[in-house]
Amino acid sequence: MKTITTWGKLALASLAAATLVACGGSEQAEDTANVAQKVEKIEWKMVTTWPKNFPGLGTGAEALANNINQMSDGRLEVKVYAAGELVPALETFDAVSRGTAEMGHSTAYYWKGKAPAVQFFSSVPFGMTAQEFNAWLEYGGGLELWEEVYAPFNIIPMAAGNSGAQMGGWFNKEINSVDDFKGLKMRMPGLGGEVMKKVGAVMVNLPGSEIFTALQTGTIDATEWVGPYNDLAFGLYKAAKYYYYPGWQEPGSAIEALVNKDAFNALPEDLQGIVRAAAQQANLGMLNEFTARNNAALETLVNDHNVILKTFPNDLLEALKVASDETLQEIAANDPMSQKVYDSFKSFLDSVSAWHDISERAFINARADD
Amino acid sequence: MKTITTWGKLALASLAAATLVACGGSEQAEDTANVAQKVEKIEWKMVTTWPKNFPGLGTGAEALANNINQMSDGRLEVKVYAAGELVPALETFDAVSRGTAEMGHSTAYYWKGKAPAVQFFSSVPFGMTAQEFNAWLEYGGGLELWEEVYAPFNIIPMAAGNSGAQMGGWFNKEINSVDDFKGLKMRMPGLGGEVMKKVGAVMVNLPGSEIFTALQTGTIDATEWVGPYNDLAFGLYKAAKYYYYPGWQEPGSAIEALVNKDAFNALPEDLQGIVRAAAQQANLGMLNEFTARNNAALETLVNDHNVILKTFPNDLLEALKVASDETLQEIAANDPMSQKVYDSFKSFLDSVSAWHDISERAFINARADD
Repeated sequence: MKTITTWGKLALASLAAATLVACGGSEQAEDTANVAQKVEKIEWKMVTTWPKNFPGLGTGAEALANNINQMSDGRLEVKVYAAGELVPALETFDAVSRGTAEMGHSTAYYWKGKAPAVQFFSSVPFGMTAQEFNAWLEYGGGLELWEEVYAPFNIIPMAAGNSGAQMGGWFNKEINSVDDFKGLKMRMPGLGGEVMKKVGAVMVNLPGSEIFTALQTGTIDATEWVGPYNDLAFGLYKAAKYYYYPGWQEPGSAIEALVNKDAFNALPEDLQGIVRAAAQQANLGMLNEFTARNNAALETLVNDHNVILKTFPNDLLEALKVASDETLQEIAANDPMSQKVYDSFKSFLDSVSAWHDISERAFINARADD
Repeated sequence: MKTITTWGKLALASLAAATLVACGGSEQAEDTANVAQKVEKIEWKMVTTWPKNFPGLGTGAEALANNINQMSDGRLEVKVYAAGELVPALETFDAVSRGTAEMGHSTAYYWKGKAPAVQFFSSVPFGMTAQEFNAWLEYGGGLELWEEVYAPFNIIPMAAGNSGAQMGGWFNKEINSVDDFKGLKMRMPGLGGEVMKKVGAVMVNLPGSEIFTALQTGTIDATEWVGPYNDLAFGLYKAAKYYYYPGWQEPGSAIEALVNKDAFNALPEDLQGIVRAAAQQANLGMLNEFTARNNAALETLVNDHNVILKTFPNDLLEALKVASDETLQEIAANDPMSQKVYDSFKSFLDSVSAWHDISERAFINARADD
């Protein structure tokens, strides 16, 4: 640990400067101290892929910035920009890479055009839950791999939130077997969409703003979004009748903080520690929020809006599982870095799910009344 | 947010002092700055209920202290004391209450003699998992209640770790039905032990140091400890043959940071934020460590030490569930604060487990091959 702090050094510098002028007059001495303080204050921009105050995600970015600002006592001040305020949502990664913004708040699968391996750091179909993913990052080598994937872009990634297990999506048709997915027009981005294509569904790419109308008019038959807390706010229950589970495609979607590497390395060690701790605090905080709020929203959907909750049939889930394995193996086979990440991911998943089979899974099945 | 930092104020103070002496000589000016820095440094003691470097728990206390020290750049320096170094393990709470130590690292059920309601803040039989408990604390009113329970003792509690779901324990007898628990001599502290008594088991109180021999010599038939990572290190496989699951008695045991209220309130806001963030970082970090390490330890137990993994029979789990409900209701009925905490706990548990039934539980059951 350093024993002379940056502020300590600053005090000595101010003092030396003041000594030079103090015998002549006092006003200049105060100016020198003020200037020194202004130089020391660091201002960062955080660009995001979310609309302003988007529940859980946009508010999560604000919480992260506030925590950094409070812990650094304003020495590092982070200002959040919603999607489009400084750069468009999908330029977040490039903006942080170039240093236009020092931080970003997003999710990794948006950047698959940069490097296919990023897709393992959002959520993987039939992959890890939030708890398992966080354990892989911190104690299973996952974070080092994520850093390796982002290093060519001059970006340091940190986990900064998680939605927990998402829902399977909104449907205007009942799904009774895997055959009902053939020809189904659905909006599902990311790896889930790739898997859906393998079982015969037709993927329709739509920006968030067009989903509601497309679902209402029958341009699409189905869409996924997040979970009850976000889906209720989005009003999707007005456009579709059935709400399916489990959300096999995103069992725990990680939200990332992107940090420009030069900007991070220029921070003193204490501020680096503060940025990392604030990200971890936000990581758990967001999961806590989704975990706590989803059920009340689900009750509103079912009780007040007559949404019909349905579970996917077993044959469909089995088919999706097979298609998911194929999809991941294809991504790995086409890109050495993806193969490296997949091997680590798969090995950790096999181990941690074996443990959860006899710990959390066995427990929650024993706790349940059914 | 404050715009003049403590260090900023210190710089101005140093400067003013230096101005007085600078025209005479320079050595004294440096001394003044050094003295000013020493005055600002705050030193805290953290007493714990764990042996030094006890896996996951003792190391978790060290990690928490290190994070505070790094983020504060040594302005707040926390030194960790293992059980018995400064005070005996079970005087941790009193030491923090009196201010003998500014912090403690422990788990709440040890203090049930102080207030019965504390028992809801460690782990509750058939209660919440780690993820559910953290969500209750931050978004379900749990933390406010915990603060209310500790307030009369001048202590602020914070969640600072979690073991995740524990195992059901080590047994030297096969358990084939609830009848096999009648007369069984077992060591199980906390609420789990109260529940066991209701189904006919005989509870034997033993300090950690005597468990191994008692199990080996037949003084007890069974004991619980933590989970594979700790149990392997403890060598319990040498004294018992069967390792049972699920760990119904502790589905997610929370570790607490205790902070003396006067000491906390005397901190500037930035250091208060750092203490809270470091606790949250440690909270998730410990769960990550247990989640990642338990399976490798379990494999070693089963493959290298021939431990026999067994699941409790359903009739026993049902009987334990009924006895658990009775136990919690009795605690609540005997103490108004416990009733208040129980009502909040139970209401959140019902809601969050309904959500998890269709999200994480449905997902991990679909993911599993069996």
